[in-house]
Amino acid sequence: MYEGAIQDLIDELGRLPGVGPKSAQRIAFHVLQSDPADVHRLAGALQRVKELVRFCTTCYNVAEAEQCRICRDSRRSGDVLCVVEEPKDVVAIERTGEFRGRYHVLGGAINPLEGIGPDHLRVRELMTRLGGGAVRELILATDPNTEGEATATYLALLVKPMGIAVSRLASGLPVGGDLEYADEITLGRAFSGRRAV
Amino acid sequence: MYEGAIQDLIDELGRLPGVGPKSAQRIAFHVLQSDPADVHRLAGALQRVKELVRFCTTCYNVAEAEQCRICRDSRRSGDVLCVVEEPKDVVAIERTGEFRGRYHVLGGAINPLEGIGPDHLRVRELMTRLGGGAVRELILATDPNTEGEATATYLALLVKPMGIAVSRLASGLPVGGDLEYADEITLGRAFSGRRAV
Repeated sequence: MYEGAIQDLIDELGRLPGVGPKSAQRIAFHVLQSDPADVHRLAGALQRVKELVRFCTTCYNVAEAEQCRICRDSRRSGDVLCVVEEPKDVVAIERTGEFRGRYHVLGGAINPLEGIGPDHLRVRELMTRLGGGAVRELILATDPNTEGEATATYLALLVKPMGIAVSRLASGLPVGGDLEYADEITLGRAFSGRRAV
Repeated sequence: MYEGAIQDLIDELGRLPGVGPKSAQRIAFHVLQSDPADVHRLAGALQRVKELVRFCTTCYNVAEAEQCRICRDSRRSGDVLCVVEEPKDVVAIERTGEFRGRYHVLGGAINPLEGIGPDHLRVRELMTRLGGGAVRELILATDPNTEGEATATYLALLVKPMGIAVSRLASGLPVGGDLEYADEITLGRAFSGRRAV
């Protein structure tokens, strides 16, 4: 409905995840009214991501060098490995400041309905890393949903015979939450996972 | 928390309206995994909008030439003028296919709380157009909220003495809506604006 360039931009923005036609239009008009330098910076950032960012050859986290920042950091313990689905999970765990080991990014979770099996994930690469013998403990930090649980169960079965300690992140009530609003599965897990005080 | 380029992109995306930190991260990872050609097209569309799009010198709609598509279209009636707040309102009205006249885009609405008075809008430009004598009817299609109503009332007072017919878009129940869910002001307007059948 708009003329050329602005409709092109609305169309392109509408292809992004979570951006509907109304948001695309809103963003396009924002761009139209913003400072040319700001728009230039955004366009540049988009292109630089494609040029510079690749995946760490060790853990498959996002990186701008052969290895990511965490794999390059010699102060991080190499004997604990945390397995996550996506690079954003690495960031979420790093934010807690609780973990000083290294990561392994699977690139997804097992999902038979969508035809994603272990061969589509970086499971073989994980086994190679574990085969090196340096890893003492493996923390399975896949998402607490069906696919994540299936992936964790699969990996636990595979890794336990190697004599490596395998653990899974605790499920339970979110801190700051309200007991009465917790769903029954979460509340059930909080019960079965109760700790002595 | 991310390295260089991807964090830059998340920061830039987070400045767009309606894009929070989580969406910015989601879009950044989408960009990272999409085809370089798609990303190049989006970056190009952003920059082209700033280069090509300007405002029509007659009606202040968005345009890629001296005048917008509607002002250039000689089949459109020049004796009915529809006043709207923003270019997106032009698109919304064009979609109805009900209007064959021309537009005047004010660039906003009167809002004393934010210090926006008639001088900040294209009111003077509207009066110049109306002074030409070709316009027979003025349709006030500002938003049906406090600012839009104030703007419409102000313009009506200004234009009526010129002998031009002034009308306002009908307020009432949205088509396909449910009477019981209508707010009292809308329902009240629907009553006062009832039509003989």
